[in-house]
Amino acid sequence: MSPRLIERANLDFLLFEWLGLERLLERPVFCEHSRESVGAQLDLAERIAAERFLPHYKLSDQIEPVLGEGGVEVLPAIGEALTAFAEAGFLAAPFAEDLDGMRVPEVVHAAGMGLFMAANIATSAYAMLTIANARLLAAHGSPSQIEAFARPQIAGEAFGTMCLSEPQAGSSLADIRTRAVPEGDDPLGERFRLFGNKMWISGGDQNVSGNIFHLVLAKIPQADGTLPEGTASISLFVVPKWLAGEGGKAGVRNDVVVAGLNHKMGYRGTANCLLNFGEGTRYRPHGEAGAIGYLVGERGQGLAIMFHMMNEARIAVGLGAAALACRAHLLSVDYARQRTQGRAGRKEKNAAPDPIIKHPDVKRMLVSQKCYAEGALSLILFCARLVDERETAASEEERAGADQLLGLLTPAAKTWSSQWGLAANDLAIQIHGGYGYTRDFDVEQLYRDNRLNPIHEGTTGIQGIDFVGRKLVRDGGAALDLLGRRIDDSCREALRDAGLRPFAGKLDAAWRQFRAVADKLREADRRAVLGNATEMLDAFGHIVVAWLWLDQTSVALRAGSARAGEPLAAAKLAACAFFFDVELPRAECSLATIARMSTAVADIPAGIFQ
Amino acid sequence: MSPRLIERANLDFLLFEWLGLERLLERPVFCEHSRESVGAQLDLAERIAAERFLPHYKLSDQIEPVLGEGGVEVLPAIGEALTAFAEAGFLAAPFAEDLDGMRVPEVVHAAGMGLFMAANIATSAYAMLTIANARLLAAHGSPSQIEAFARPQIAGEAFGTMCLSEPQAGSSLADIRTRAVPEGDDPLGERFRLFGNKMWISGGDQNVSGNIFHLVLAKIPQADGTLPEGTASISLFVVPKWLAGEGGKAGVRNDVVVAGLNHKMGYRGTANCLLNFGEGTRYRPHGEAGAIGYLVGERGQGLAIMFHMMNEARIAVGLGAAALACRAHLLSVDYARQRTQGRAGRKEKNAAPDPIIKHPDVKRMLVSQKCYAEGALSLILFCARLVDERETAASEEERAGADQLLGLLTPAAKTWSSQWGLAANDLAIQIHGGYGYTRDFDVEQLYRDNRLNPIHEGTTGIQGIDFVGRKLVRDGGAALDLLGRRIDDSCREALRDAGLRPFAGKLDAAWRQFRAVADKLREADRRAVLGNATEMLDAFGHIVVAWLWLDQTSVALRAGSARAGEPLAAAKLAACAFFFDVELPRAECSLATIARMSTAVADIPAGIFQ
Repeated sequence: MSPRLIERANLDFLLFEWLGLERLLERPVFCEHSRESVGAQLDLAERIAAERFLPHYKLSDQIEPVLGEGGVEVLPAIGEALTAFAEAGFLAAPFAEDLDGMRVPEVVHAAGMGLFMAANIATSAYAMLTIANARLLAAHGSPSQIEAFARPQIAGEAFGTMCLSEPQAGSSLADIRTRAVPEGDDPLGERFRLFGNKMWISGGDQNVSGNIFHLVLAKIPQADGTLPEGTASISLFVVPKWLAGEGGKAGVRNDVVVAGLNHKMGYRGTANCLLNFGEGTRYRPHGEAGAIGYLVGERGQGLAIMFHMMNEARIAVGLGAAALACRAHLLSVDYARQRTQGRAGRKEKNAAPDPIIKHPDVKRMLVSQKCYAEGALSLILFCARLVDERETAASEEERAGADQLLGLLTPAAKTWSSQWGLAANDLAIQIHGGYGYTRDFDVEQLYRDNRLNPIHEGTTGIQGIDFVGRKLVRDGGAALDLLGRRIDDSCREALRDAGLRPFAGKLDAAWRQFRAVADKLREADRRAVLGNATEMLDAFGHIVVAWLWLDQTSVALRAGSARAGEPLAAAKLAACAFFFDVELPRAECSLATIARMSTAVADIPAGIFQ
Repeated sequence: MSPRLIERANLDFLLFEWLGLERLLERPVFCEHSRESVGAQLDLAERIAAERFLPHYKLSDQIEPVLGEGGVEVLPAIGEALTAFAEAGFLAAPFAEDLDGMRVPEVVHAAGMGLFMAANIATSAYAMLTIANARLLAAHGSPSQIEAFARPQIAGEAFGTMCLSEPQAGSSLADIRTRAVPEGDDPLGERFRLFGNKMWISGGDQNVSGNIFHLVLAKIPQADGTLPEGTASISLFVVPKWLAGEGGKAGVRNDVVVAGLNHKMGYRGTANCLLNFGEGTRYRPHGEAGAIGYLVGERGQGLAIMFHMMNEARIAVGLGAAALACRAHLLSVDYARQRTQGRAGRKEKNAAPDPIIKHPDVKRMLVSQKCYAEGALSLILFCARLVDERETAASEEERAGADQLLGLLTPAAKTWSSQWGLAANDLAIQIHGGYGYTRDFDVEQLYRDNRLNPIHEGTTGIQGIDFVGRKLVRDGGAALDLLGRRIDDSCREALRDAGLRPFAGKLDAAWRQFRAVADKLREADRRAVLGNATEMLDAFGHIVVAWLWLDQTSVALRAGSARAGEPLAAAKLAACAFFFDVELPRAECSLATIARMSTAVADIPAGIFQ
């Protein structure tokens, strides 16, 4: 039996039956694709993930990247896996044909990436970042930048990074100190010399790709040499590790060096670096200190443009979290079927022990896991489907609506998946008992790996602030109205099935409660808003996932569905019922607390903490 | 500044003001102790913990125990720390004077152990197991067994283990296969030869102590050579690593060998072994295969006697979890004061960044942590105080009541502390951001270490079953009545303070709700009981901790209290208010779900899990 990464029957159900992929493929832009070709792509992703990504999963945890003389060295298997990934076309797949891509729908790309992430999140990260980097350049770079920097990434010759944080500035990008000094024009765009330090740079260096293109946020000094305040003065630069040589000559090493590697709890195969730009001690391109970089987009538009990559990375973080949770769930199911312990139900004491899957408490853990893991996966695929909608829907109105909805859902996609996906990984250890706490079982590492996801690309706290401070209130709450209409549609559909009717009522009530609290929040004291932001986002995530469970269960049960009567439909119904019975009330409980709009937390004097 | 392990002012408050330690010390049995001597003991514990246990915290995580030619080798610093611990009298402290102990009250012993555990849980584990092992022997061993096996442990010459689990039998002890074959009488008690494998044995071998005494559960074969079924046929044996030599000669190596080491996520300094008894391949004591062991107590009483050690170990697991959470909280407070990021409140954008402790979301994480960490610590110290009450209260009725209450609270002490203590450790990583995910910061390891606590000494699921199946219903629910009266007393006291009055009402309501659900549970379908057991225990823990928060806050605020008006009292009130505002409703929400007594979880067909 090939290793189980994400249940394939469920993935197919979500794509084809729930998200109506075949209807999407009818659009002219996707005319090269069909149900069959998508199936073949997922087969290929499954095979390469199993054969090239999974085998070094533990090894790349044990043997971390090291900083050698020539830079960072990673386990050779990581490079081999990424080569196989690129050769099979997965780097190019999501790009348009004129960039040598296959114009694969985003939802298909996400499903494929999920399989790779489930097999090896740390190795997949290099690919995820490279694709997101090239996409930003394809959207915002000049034609010469696209040629020089996007194409080599799409071809797998160069990999990409995103350089935002600095040691003193993580969540607070207004405080970055990296400076970019203008050096005149260049065929690749306005040229600058960059000086500064960037922290937490995943794939910041490695010995896999021939070149590395860093997308770097920096500030252009004012006339008096000081850096302007705030985020509006941030610009974006592409800084290659190797500069193109003149007249076809070998390239020149740019002034970017690795100052150190971060040693993490998990996710260890992804080299995570502190990068120094412009020190001039080892490399002085064209005889001078300063990392050469080219302005991408307009001056001062850096943060806005970077959000092109950041938003994609946030959904990708959610996808990774969902994928780690899905694999941990499958490992748990397999273990619970095979491990015997005790006797379920009353039996003679000399009866043979039962597999632990028969014990109610183990069932409870498995169904909770399923709710979290598959719930997160559906949320992410739903978001990916919105990306397709935003880019290919027939009307401007539909495209704009998809964009609004995606903006609203992005903080939940990132945060809910990473919080509750981690909870699924925690349960996987618990189901394995003592064995799950040992490094002999993958669930141990999956848990450590997933613990990063609530942190990077904006912590849970930052997502909460984005949610209550921007996403909920933007355009007078238009995105919420839109989501409310989608929820109404699902409830109406669910009402047609007697078994789902009670859930429709509960969802409707929870949504009304959420809207009421959101309205209150809009008028509340800013301290109450900030003190309740994380909780509000979590409650929102729970309600959204309840909706997605109801909606997909409704599709699975629908008369005439290919799944009706199949185990998949029964499983969806059991998980949906559990979510509505046990999980949704938690969100309602949180909302009741938030509704008091207490400033108590914000008002706690910092001095009381000893 | 010396390293902060557990806030000392809080520890002193809990012991002296909240738990009335001075009144306890008035009892004749504790006449050697005073407020001053207890203070000096805690000072000493703090100093040795900081100087001997803490410095190798990270190193013993990096350099794990190894299996060498002569057995398991641990980091020398572990041995040095334990020697300092024994020399300072901490091994002997809780024992009676006739065993060369100091008869330190349990609540003082627990406070001291908490400091060592906060500094280094893995090194402390050897001491914790040795004390618990010697205590079992002191209570249930024969006089010659006490001399031969308890005394050397109290003197630090030998360490102890507990050997229950086997590779195929963890939670299900009825299925153990280790057999004990009678070999006649011995001055040390009825002698047996043991054959079998024991898994997850902490301290199962090490090169620190001169000898190791294993307390081993095994079954005595029936006449036909088969092992009897069930748990009632389990007996307990003490099996030394080295047998005493005859006539003062050097000892003989017993037939116990380490078959392998478990490589864990955390807690790595504690050598965790698979032990083979009676293989006869390396050691054949007196020319024959079979590990020589001596029956402790009566045949068939093994499990009952082992619970003497097990119950103590369960509280100790809760203590360790609380200690890890407390240290992570202090590290988080320090980090949040020192790390600047963003601006709290509306300020000009060129204002200097604020320490993150000023941000409402960070405050929320810190106060949650405080609630969990100090809540768990109070629960454990309360239990330790009940041990003192059980053993030294004036009347039989008080002693019996303390025993009942302790039995009811033990599963919560173990489970609530390990679940929510881990949540505090999780928040510590979140407060540290990316830095918290690196191995450069202790919060990363504290989290990995604490992840063991919901597993060992009975998983959360097992504790849930113990709680609903035994503790709630024993003696017709007498323990619940007793607890209810204590809660009533606290509520009455709290009603006298206007600021606490609303909490008293909330606690009373939550307790009534719990009682009503517990009554329903008593009549419910067994599948509903088992399907809701873990949730029920968690809700119970939340309500108990709410009670303890109210009770200690009430004491801190009481007019005339040494703490009234001090930061400690203000901090208690803020944490208490948060717990009642945000946390207690979660328990009420769970109880509302449990009250439906749904068998849905238990009825999920195992087949739906793919």
